Amino acid sequence: MSSPMKRPYLTTLSLTPENQETPIHFINGTVDDQLFFRRNHFSYPPISNLNYWLPIKGFVLSPQWVSLRDLMKMPSKTVKAVLECAGDKRRYFEPKVFGEQWGKGAISQGYWKGVPLRVLLEQAGIREGAKEVVVEGHDFGKRTDTDSIHSFTRSIPIDKALHQDTIVAYEYNGRPLTFKHGFPLRLIVPQWYAMASVKWIRQIRVIESSFEGPFQTVDYVYYPNKENTEGAFPVTTMNVNSTIQKPLDMAVLDTGKHKIEGIAWTGGGYITKVEISTNNGENWSETKFSSDTENGYGWVKWVYQWLAAKKGEYTILAKATDSTNRVQPDTPFWNRKGYGYNAIEKIKVKIE
Amino acid sequence: MSSPMKRPYLTTLSLTPENQETPIHFINGTVDDQLFFRRNHFSYPPISNLNYWLPIKGFVLSPQWVSLRDLMKMPSKTVKAVLECAGDKRRYFEPKVFGEQWGKGAISQGYWKGVPLRVLLEQAGIREGAKEVVVEGHDFGKRTDTDSIHSFTRSIPIDKALHQDTIVAYEYNGRPLTFKHGFPLRLIVPQWYAMASVKWIRQIRVIESSFEGPFQTVDYVYYPNKENTEGAFPVTTMNVNSTIQKPLDMAVLDTGKHKIEGIAWTGGGYITKVEISTNNGENWSETKFSSDTENGYGWVKWVYQWLAAKKGEYTILAKATDSTNRVQPDTPFWNRKGYGYNAIEKIKVKIE
Repeated sequence: MSSPMKRPYLTTLSLTPENQETPIHFINGTVDDQLFFRRNHFSYPPISNLNYWLPIKGFVLSPQWVSLRDLMKMPSKTVKAVLECAGDKRRYFEPKVFGEQWGKGAISQGYWKGVPLRVLLEQAGIREGAKEVVVEGHDFGKRTDTDSIHSFTRSIPIDKALHQDTIVAYEYNGRPLTFKHGFPLRLIVPQWYAMASVKWIRQIRVIESSFEGPFQTVDYVYYPNKENTEGAFPVTTMNVNSTIQKPLDMAVLDTGKHKIEGIAWTGGGYITKVEISTNNGENWSETKFSSDTENGYGWVKWVYQWLAAKKGEYTILAKATDSTNRVQPDTPFWNRKGYGYNAIEKIKVKIE
Repeated sequence: MSSPMKRPYLTTLSLTPENQETPIHFINGTVDDQLFFRRNHFSYPPISNLNYWLPIKGFVLSPQWVSLRDLMKMPSKTVKAVLECAGDKRRYFEPKVFGEQWGKGAISQGYWKGVPLRVLLEQAGIREGAKEVVVEGHDFGKRTDTDSIHSFTRSIPIDKALHQDTIVAYEYNGRPLTFKHGFPLRLIVPQWYAMASVKWIRQIRVIESSFEGPFQTVDYVYYPNKENTEGAFPVTTMNVNSTIQKPLDMAVLDTGKHKIEGIAWTGGGYITKVEISTNNGENWSETKFSSDTENGYGWVKWVYQWLAAKKGEYTILAKATDSTNRVQPDTPFWNRKGYGYNAIEKIKVKIE
């Protein structure tokens, strides 16, 4: 009998809606569609690929109804991008915060192909004074905080909507989007947390005001205080961040050489360095990048060769810096809904 | 397009060896082979189903070499049993302990069919003075604490080996054992933590002494002290334990009625009650069992109807008691290698 295939699976947090994270410790380069994390707010939508039309309407000169067929004939662009859920690493906040207890795997990356949103908007003709572009998904349901039904709808500011790399994607890693990841069309907003990358696009609407839907003004807002909304501000771009993929936290290892490896990413600029400490922050060393930094909006893969000569317990830290001089902080920015965790990455190992 | 299948996957902790846990929150009754937790000490063994013979030797009158074909003609027995890894829930020890960071899913149950070990031992004729039965698996490799190669080998005392429900299993849930779960033969030792249920049996050996292999005398030993071996004693039967399957820890729920449900199990006797507190232990209520307590060595499924009328945060506890009057303790019994965690189960939820 030949050796059976060993493979990682998605880690299931919930099934209704389906929330599953990527086993990040076993992932390299781009993430296969099957291992791409799944984050849903509602059940999967009832959607048909027959007779699909994309409306682009609202505060425009000439509303459009674009067929999939026509969309695929338009100028396209392929963008490599990390999508990270705003709640990634939520599990590590202290005090703990309510919500899906994501570990480190609410993040994946790959190549998205589609039509720049700008092309579609220019075809419709944006009217002067337009402020935001609202993208509605086909998924909908009841929220725990109200009795009414909402669809998953988000807006982005007009300048982000017109950015050349904000696209309406129809392919992932060279294949049509799969249903669970937004078929037939998904907005991809590089550098922003992934709530902006709306799946199963139902319509695109230009508005001259600020969008006030609950996924814009209730969720995906940083609330620094537990009891009130003082100092609240919206979740937008990803924080600079890193994850140690290997070794695992609390692993027991031999004396000798070990590779410490992981990924680092940012929503602002690009990663300039990732430092490692194997003695809980007393000394730091720079890691080597094993992937390009010319990497679109992808993560950087880094590695550090560690000689663990002496038996004992070690606290290992990783700290990324980006080209806008943002650095992972010692302590996370605690906020009531648990978004944007990016404290210095920390594991312990024992050498025996 | 019809709604896509939603399903839980095993949660991957490591691939070499392959350690994956059952997503316990989505499991009912017996666990499908595909969702049965996988705990390996080494790579999967090179093993062939051609020409497989099981030796029963050592301190016996008449050593045996039993073919699979002959084994399947012998009297058989089907046993419903929980298998729980001794490291289940290790992640929850404080201070944290080294080793695989199992959550609550290193446990599964189902129906095992096989030949009572007693039948095989009686055929070989146990000599007077026999003390233990050593079962060796086909899996082997290097341990971090030595440079030599070891197979995964464990012993059980002669009286446990002769227990009518200790079987050499060849079927799980009505089908031949799958390779990852011990094909062609696996020892099943009900009531003991699952390290005793050796997979891929290579040989069975009766001895008149105490077996001293590293998986018997180094691992699977409770060490109450971090720095020395004082007070150490072997890991054997499962502790009384329970897990809340629903709701999830840190979930946000509507006001109204909610089912709190889960499982409870023990390695001694049977579960007599499971109590729930929705106010962090001030008051306790008994849950209802929705499965038989006449359940072989399976877990009990329990449920509690909770009316969450008032908004706010709730700490929910579950506490099981068994027929030998063992109760889950308030605080876990900390031990250096992190075995046998069974403190009162605790989650928090928010009603909004």
